[in-house]
Amino acid sequence: MNEPEIRKRVAIINRKLDKSGLVTQTFGNASARDPLNNDIYIKPSGVPFSKITPTNIVRTDSEGANYGESKPSVDLPVHIEIYNNFSSINGVIHTHSHYATVFAQAKKSIPCLGTTHADYFRRDIPVIRDLYSEEIENNYEKNLGRIIVSFFGEKKLNSLDISAVLVPSHGPFVWGETIESAFEKALALEEIAKLAFHTLVLGRNESRSANTMSIKPELVEKHFSRKHGKNKYYGQ
Amino acid sequence: MNEPEIRKRVAIINRKLDKSGLVTQTFGNASARDPLNNDIYIKPSGVPFSKITPTNIVRTDSEGANYGESKPSVDLPVHIEIYNNFSSINGVIHTHSHYATVFAQAKKSIPCLGTTHADYFRRDIPVIRDLYSEEIENNYEKNLGRIIVSFFGEKKLNSLDISAVLVPSHGPFVWGETIESAFEKALALEEIAKLAFHTLVLGRNESRSANTMSIKPELVEKHFSRKHGKNKYYGQ
Amino acid sequence: MNEPEIRKRVAIINRKLDKSGLVTQTFGNASARDPLNNDIYIKPSGVPFSKITPTNIVRTDSEGANYGESKPSVDLPVHIEIYNNFSSINGVIHTHSHYATVFAQAKKSIPCLGTTHADYFRRDIPVIRDLYSEEIENNYEKNLGRIIVSFFGEKKLNSLDISAVLVPSHGPFVWGETIESAFEKALALEEIAKLAFHTLVLGRNESRSANTMSIKPELVEKHFSRKHGKNKYYGQ
Amino acid sequence: MNEPEIRKRVAIINRKLDKSGLVTQTFGNASARDPLNNDIYIKPSGVPFSKITPTNIVRTDSEGANYGESKPSVDLPVHIEIYNNFSSINGVIHTHSHYATVFAQAKKSIPCLGTTHADYFRRDIPVIRDLYSEEIENNYEKNLGRIIVSFFGEKKLNSLDISAVLVPSHGPFVWGETIESAFEKALALEEIAKLAFHTLVLGRNESRSANTMSIKPELVEKHFSRKHGKNKYYGQ
Repeated sequence: MNEPEIRKRVAIINRKLDKSGLVTQTFGNASARDPLNNDIYIKPSGVPFSKITPTNIVRTDSEGANYGESKPSVDLPVHIEIYNNFSSINGVIHTHSHYATVFAQAKKSIPCLGTTHADYFRRDIPVIRDLYSEEIENNYEKNLGRIIVSFFGEKKLNSLDISAVLVPSHGPFVWGETIESAFEKALALEEIAKLAFHTLVLGRNESRSANTMSIKPELVEKHFSRKHGKNKYYGQ
Repeated sequence: MNEPEIRKRVAIINRKLDKSGLVTQTFGNASARDPLNNDIYIKPSGVPFSKITPTNIVRTDSEGANYGESKPSVDLPVHIEIYNNFSSINGVIHTHSHYATVFAQAKKSIPCLGTTHADYFRRDIPVIRDLYSEEIENNYEKNLGRIIVSFFGEKKLNSLDISAVLVPSHGPFVWGETIESAFEKALALEEIAKLAFHTLVLGRNESRSANTMSIKPELVEKHFSRKHGKNKYYGQ
Repeated sequence: MNEPEIRKRVAIINRKLDKSGLVTQTFGNASARDPLNNDIYIKPSGVPFSKITPTNIVRTDSEGANYGESKPSVDLPVHIEIYNNFSSINGVIHTHSHYATVFAQAKKSIPCLGTTHADYFRRDIPVIRDLYSEEIENNYEKNLGRIIVSFFGEKKLNSLDISAVLVPSHGPFVWGETIESAFEKALALEEIAKLAFHTLVLGRNESRSANTMSIKPELVEKHFSRKHGKNKYYGQ
Repeated sequence: MNEPEIRKRVAIINRKLDKSGLVTQTFGNASARDPLNNDIYIKPSGVPFSKITPTNIVRTDSEGANYGESKPSVDLPVHIEIYNNFSSINGVIHTHSHYATVFAQAKKSIPCLGTTHADYFRRDIPVIRDLYSEEIENNYEKNLGRIIVSFFGEKKLNSLDISAVLVPSHGPFVWGETIESAFEKALALEEIAKLAFHTLVLGRNESRSANTMSIKPELVEKHFSRKHGKNKYYGQ
């Protein structure tokens, strides 16, 4: 993939991010990695979404060293940690989408309560731990990325089965094999967070327990695999 | 009705489905049956709603044998079971509309709490049972259709009085004498699910019991029959 | 006011009703009374809002006798009862606006919890009683109107202080000195119902009681009278 | 800054206020102060937002004495008290934005539950006390302004750290160093009120206490200061 092409794709997704309602004011950013050389292309800092063009997208190497002069999004170190540790991921998106942020603020994972969830994500969307004070004060954004990555390592989670995570008191990061699939999942994440929110509220205080409400594991597997598995037959 | 005409109608309703907000990404599909020969016309699989035209609508016979080459929606077997068992039904729609899906995920029927409900549906909108593991693993979509149909048979429910059902952990199927009336009911279903959700939340924890909140059966009958009964006088 | 002028105003408000989101599909209607001769102009029955023009608005006398051939809205008898008993009212609107309908379905009055409410309505928006079975079966719409009117009489309520009412299991009727002011109040009613809904949910289960949450009567009076009282000074 | 320029800015923000959905009908107003002579420019009273132009913006001196003939917004005395006591504030906005008004009606402060809050406001958004009856009856709007100002004085709150306040049973006032930054904060206030509302509902009745849900003070400080502090590095 050549540089002009990837700049264009990153600009398009950042513009779509704004129009989709997934971001609040300037809070949100999308990046892509070029799998040939591991260079990263990301939203510039302090530029309103409406002013983003292929030209002002910032290109850095895989350690964040900047080839140009404009400043990358302040969240670049989070994206770098994800790219450098999840080898099949080439697109990362950070949003403040409403209901996903509500789960992040409540420090609750988003439970898989239906097939819409299972169509995109094979497990609950987890919340990572709070950062320690010293992790906040020094290299805040890099530490955030490190903790996301080590959380997946410790829990032996597959970054393609669960391609999103909630940062407590903050909001979601979502990723995919391409920036376009990361964007599709960011839209789906907000949808399933909103469904889970209202389902939990509706089911609350009922004689039927949360257990009764739970989805069958076989059904989750069926929906995830008919769309993403090796014998997939959905939408082919 | 000739083939070009029915293809056009099915394409129009599938396009409206997308614009109505009743579907999530590609999750949803509408079909019509030609009452003359029982052929079924349905949304093609894997085609974005914005690309649907009369030409790419898929035509099959009443057992799902395909006359053409493009693949029908993966949910075709559900539609087939409904058509082959509910003789007056010629339009079926599957959506992931938000509040109807919330009730499906909570595995709760949508109670009739007002005249807006009764204007369209004569009874609560029921939830069918969970599928057994083996029903999920083999012929999943066909089993889903079979269970919907046998649920109505066992409960002696009239498919025109209650022209919708909730699939647990999944979402609604809605039908009608035509694809256009199925679409009108799919819109109404989302509206009444949203009303019921907020009514249940507002009434919760109140000294007045759910019973006090309940609608009088005579009022339900009045509203359903002034619009659909043999002496109907609404909107004539 | 001449007939062409009033037909035009009634058509405009019925079209606005549709665009405002206050009605569900065809459920809703607006009418005006000509104060010179007490004739009533109302939405025709069975005509989609988008097809309403000054010409197809239906004109009847004060008892509902129709001057023309097209059928008036099925709710005409409710409007007639209101006009014939509330002498300063010349505009009546029926909507299925979401949050007002939620209170109607929960059979709860909309409490005055803030100045936005007091800017339009001087008291809580009440719910009338359920109709008896025989009132539903015969002359349903006329009985609905009678019960609204006698509710205001029994409680000695002023139809300009509280220019709206909730019909249980159904939805709101709103009125005003003109059809335009009735429409403004119908918009405000939905707004304050939505505010009251979320305020009640937020305040629920809190150590602070509902009493603590209540608005001071002097503040209600200040806001209602600075806008509607004889010494009004708001927006003059 | 010259008069035509400031009139234009005030007109633009008042028009944006309407389009943003932060105001209900005519309830809301924005003003700016000219720091050179302390003159105030504010929305005219009784003029629909869509009719506001630089020409009909009302200019008064710092005590509210009017240079022209059209009437200023009835809330001018509130704006005056804020300008005359918070010396670095040159823009004030009053809205009836939905979720901020819900907190005001419930008489609850908006707790800081996430970084979106901390990106704009360093502390919870407080509610001032109810006015006494005599404060409502005489000089209502001026008293409202006085109580806002003395609340900040008594609590030793910094008007730039917490640039918004909730008036109980009413709604929010928001301010900033310019009218444009006040508008940005008014948008953010509604966003964080909506996030806090759903977070509190989601976290309710859970085994995890509100304490567990709370954001770390260091994280609040990090987010507020990386955007507003002297070593800020966000979006530069």
